[in-house]
Amino acid sequence: MKVLVAGGAGFIGSHLMDALLQEGHEVVCVDNFFIGTKQNIAHLANEPRFTFYEQDICEPDTLDDIFAREKVEYVFHLAANSDIQASASDPSIEYRNTYTTTFRLLECMRRHQVKKLFFASTSAVYGEKMGSEVAEDTTPLEPISYYGAAKLGSEALISAFSYMNDLSVLIFRFPNVIGPRLTHGVIFDFVKRLKDDPSHLRILGDGMQSKPYMHVHDLVNGIMQCKDVPQGVTLYNIGVETQTSVTRIAEIVCEKMGLSGIPFSYTGGRGGWKGDVPVFAYDLRKIHQAGWSAAYTSDEAVAHTVEQVI
Amino acid sequence: MKVLVAGGAGFIGSHLMDALLQEGHEVVCVDNFFIGTKQNIAHLANEPRFTFYEQDICEPDTLDDIFAREKVEYVFHLAANSDIQASASDPSIEYRNTYTTTFRLLECMRRHQVKKLFFASTSAVYGEKMGSEVAEDTTPLEPISYYGAAKLGSEALISAFSYMNDLSVLIFRFPNVIGPRLTHGVIFDFVKRLKDDPSHLRILGDGMQSKPYMHVHDLVNGIMQCKDVPQGVTLYNIGVETQTSVTRIAEIVCEKMGLSGIPFSYTGGRGGWKGDVPVFAYDLRKIHQAGWSAAYTSDEAVAHTVEQVI
Repeated sequence: MKVLVAGGAGFIGSHLMDALLQEGHEVVCVDNFFIGTKQNIAHLANEPRFTFYEQDICEPDTLDDIFAREKVEYVFHLAANSDIQASASDPSIEYRNTYTTTFRLLECMRRHQVKKLFFASTSAVYGEKMGSEVAEDTTPLEPISYYGAAKLGSEALISAFSYMNDLSVLIFRFPNVIGPRLTHGVIFDFVKRLKDDPSHLRILGDGMQSKPYMHVHDLVNGIMQCKDVPQGVTLYNIGVETQTSVTRIAEIVCEKMGLSGIPFSYTGGRGGWKGDVPVFAYDLRKIHQAGWSAAYTSDEAVAHTVEQVI
Repeated sequence: MKVLVAGGAGFIGSHLMDALLQEGHEVVCVDNFFIGTKQNIAHLANEPRFTFYEQDICEPDTLDDIFAREKVEYVFHLAANSDIQASASDPSIEYRNTYTTTFRLLECMRRHQVKKLFFASTSAVYGEKMGSEVAEDTTPLEPISYYGAAKLGSEALISAFSYMNDLSVLIFRFPNVIGPRLTHGVIFDFVKRLKDDPSHLRILGDGMQSKPYMHVHDLVNGIMQCKDVPQGVTLYNIGVETQTSVTRIAEIVCEKMGLSGIPFSYTGGRGGWKGDVPVFAYDLRKIHQAGWSAAYTSDEAVAHTVEQVI
């Protein structure tokens, strides 16, 4: 089938496009290189089943032209701000790049009768649950970051557009996703700091912040495996059952960089910054029952990613 | 205290401003007359504690000027599209007038250090719950209208802005609210149709759609009584325990208009239009435990409203 990947030049989007092309689909990529990069899609330049539009998804008229021309069957929506720390001081980044992108895509789908959607949501919709395992129906949903708020707002839009226009939608709530082509986040920061100054490593918070890190190949396998859903909205948490603390990430980075005995200093406090959720765990029974589970543990995903980044 | 009422020239906003002035507060009203009317605020023209700005809340620069000049302590946010049926064919009305208004107000509150907010949310955030009583923590929240989606997205924004900026927020999820100054909805439609042609009355759906109708004076009393909340978000369903069917509304309208024996015809189907929730009931224990309850039943609220409209 012919599909549109919004945010396809980004870290996760580009891996998803590789998998879609691998499975024989035609892929139309829309990206404005706000976070995505030309490098992520350079290897697709001569792929005949690949089309690229440099396009801001918030611009309704030109986006509508693409839908009119390309007549896609399925939209994979991964266009969003992905740097929660950056938007903490400027919420308008999330209003525009995370919420408005969703609205504009749904409006184009409505007008052009596109019925299938995949949406990249996030664990941040749950807010701070103090380490208890959250399932898909855990309540209340109280995001503490502007990013989580814009993603929860997007899920709400999808609920109404799906009902009003008979869509078939798959939503995954992503945990931290890592792997090749990653451009920011704690692993990236640690590698950069140790390259700049290998004498010590400064760590935000108390180092005990512990989250499940998921390898992007596992995530993409999950999307590919689950993408054919019935009418309505099908929602899954996706992730790994194990977790990795920030201090453990620092240890893995040092080990892979061949550095030993590096002193770690901690800024203190529970979270890395306001809006960060310091401890997080998923109840993954629903997606496991659907027949998917991750191949990498959280520590393995971290180790593989560090190898790619250094 | 000095307060800002966004959407103050609207049906509910104008009643709230009357109550705030009555209690001795200074009121700054911001409205663009998209749904609000000059008539609703005409009686306040000579009130020295009342200031009015004709202003679109989606325009960030001029809204920011108002916040800089007026230095309010509390924002009452009732600026939204309130005609769900109208936005069913144009979701951008909700994107702009319901969601973006919330984002712009929260941004001004953040920049100008305004810490207190009341937000008018809606039963539409719950979606179609098939008549079962919904409590504040009922899950999942699956809005079926673009209006409900934009309000749920607004609640998500408020959750994050509250956490990040230490706000104290009261959210009421309104049911159908009726009373003097009402400008649309089923009562208004029936009166208008019977004035145009008193020989019969056409009713959308099967007439069995049954909802709690709440008198605006009860709602405003609830806001005034509960408006001092601790830091964080305090969320209540507000409403009445009784319900009124559409056929019963038609009967009350005919009775109050002195019409008898009018034949009713039904278009059939459960809902009035796609996105309408045909049957709805609230669990109201939380707000009752907070010491508030409605003075009017649903039928009484309908009867009083019909008397004002005819």
